[in-house]
Amino acid sequence: MQKSRLNREQRERLTRILAHDFQHQPELLDRALTHRSFSSDNYERLEFLGDSILNFIIAEDICDRFPDTDEGTLSRLRSSMVRCETLAEIGRELDLGSYLLLGSGELKSGGYDRDSILEDVLEAIIGAIYRDAGMELARAFVLRIFADRLKRLDLSVSLKDPKTRLQELLQKEGRDLPEYNIIDVSGPPHKQVFKVECDLADADKLYSGTGQSRRKAEQDAANRALADLLEQN
Amino acid sequence: MQKSRLNREQRERLTRILAHDFQHQPELLDRALTHRSFSSDNYERLEFLGDSILNFIIAEDICDRFPDTDEGTLSRLRSSMVRCETLAEIGRELDLGSYLLLGSGELKSGGYDRDSILEDVLEAIIGAIYRDAGMELARAFVLRIFADRLKRLDLSVSLKDPKTRLQELLQKEGRDLPEYNIIDVSGPPHKQVFKVECDLADADKLYSGTGQSRRKAEQDAANRALADLLEQN
Repeated sequence: MQKSRLNREQRERLTRILAHDFQHQPELLDRALTHRSFSSDNYERLEFLGDSILNFIIAEDICDRFPDTDEGTLSRLRSSMVRCETLAEIGRELDLGSYLLLGSGELKSGGYDRDSILEDVLEAIIGAIYRDAGMELARAFVLRIFADRLKRLDLSVSLKDPKTRLQELLQKEGRDLPEYNIIDVSGPPHKQVFKVECDLADADKLYSGTGQSRRKAEQDAANRALADLLEQN
Repeated sequence: MQKSRLNREQRERLTRILAHDFQHQPELLDRALTHRSFSSDNYERLEFLGDSILNFIIAEDICDRFPDTDEGTLSRLRSSMVRCETLAEIGRELDLGSYLLLGSGELKSGGYDRDSILEDVLEAIIGAIYRDAGMELARAFVLRIFADRLKRLDLSVSLKDPKTRLQELLQKEGRDLPEYNIIDVSGPPHKQVFKVECDLADADKLYSGTGQSRRKAEQDAANRALADLLEQN
């Protein structure tokens, strides 16, 4: 990349919006905003890296924020943060669409406001900040742009019982309701452990859960199924 | 966690094997080896965190190793590194099964050698090292245990799966990405057969594939579409 693809005014505005000045490798900012329809020197590799950095930073923050929460719930909370719609929303808040470099076809078809592109560009910018200035500044950026949403992550919502939420999700997608089957009961009578499998009729995978009652084991299994489905979406 | 669940000899051996001494938070090592069938104070949260750290470290290493490789290939190379079978293999090389803390049911059913458990424990150990000593030592650990496999990552060997190859071919030709639709599932629950159709938006033909999982059926369908396209070219 020979010269900047952004003009000086654009670069200054973006530096303020992102609160990050690409001092070491200014070309990274141009690349992070370049769609493959515009140039083969585009954001895709930065997006690949940035996606993994984002996942890690959000995972760690959520772990620290909810020290007593089980892994299934953590996984669900993270999915809600890093899913496409959320990232596209943040991309719009940062007005990234105005700085995108798109080929003419993508321009005409409204690529600057497409969720999938805004998601990718936001991840690419995270990757670019990491490459320019390291993990601590990348973390500061991510936690700043997610600050309100992380604060709003209310466990009361997420603690709504997993079986109900799984059922609601499957109904919304027009799918069959899950079946729960006890597959093992072990331990002494006063301290039994139930193992249950949650069977989604149209999935090729079973989700197992354990707990000290049948109900708890079912909730555990539902939680795992839910985390998986939300991740696929 | 009051006292160590590992005895002194086990702890010393593991410290040598992992080349990491849990000096700051020794209890993290116990927790990373504890399955939920053994205690509610188990590895699951560490696994959640460790998984994201592993993904990031491998993503960055592969980006640096292959500076000219497209994102699709990077993504595939990473998948081959962090998939369950690879992690379980490394878990066996480190003899993690010998140190696992499992409930009696899991013990009897051979949980200490189950791929999914070995995968989880390895990720939990990565999370534990990160929590104990930070990213740089976690990175050193990951790159050490993956060293041979990363060196062997030969681009020519990384045979692309049919879905990826089809996608890349269509992208190169500026065409829309294919859609995969399940059109039939038959057979008994433990031996289902999936039938899938691959729909290329701009072709007047559907390519069907079958397999014992949705994924396999999709790969089969993609393979047929690919063969057809390559023949036309």
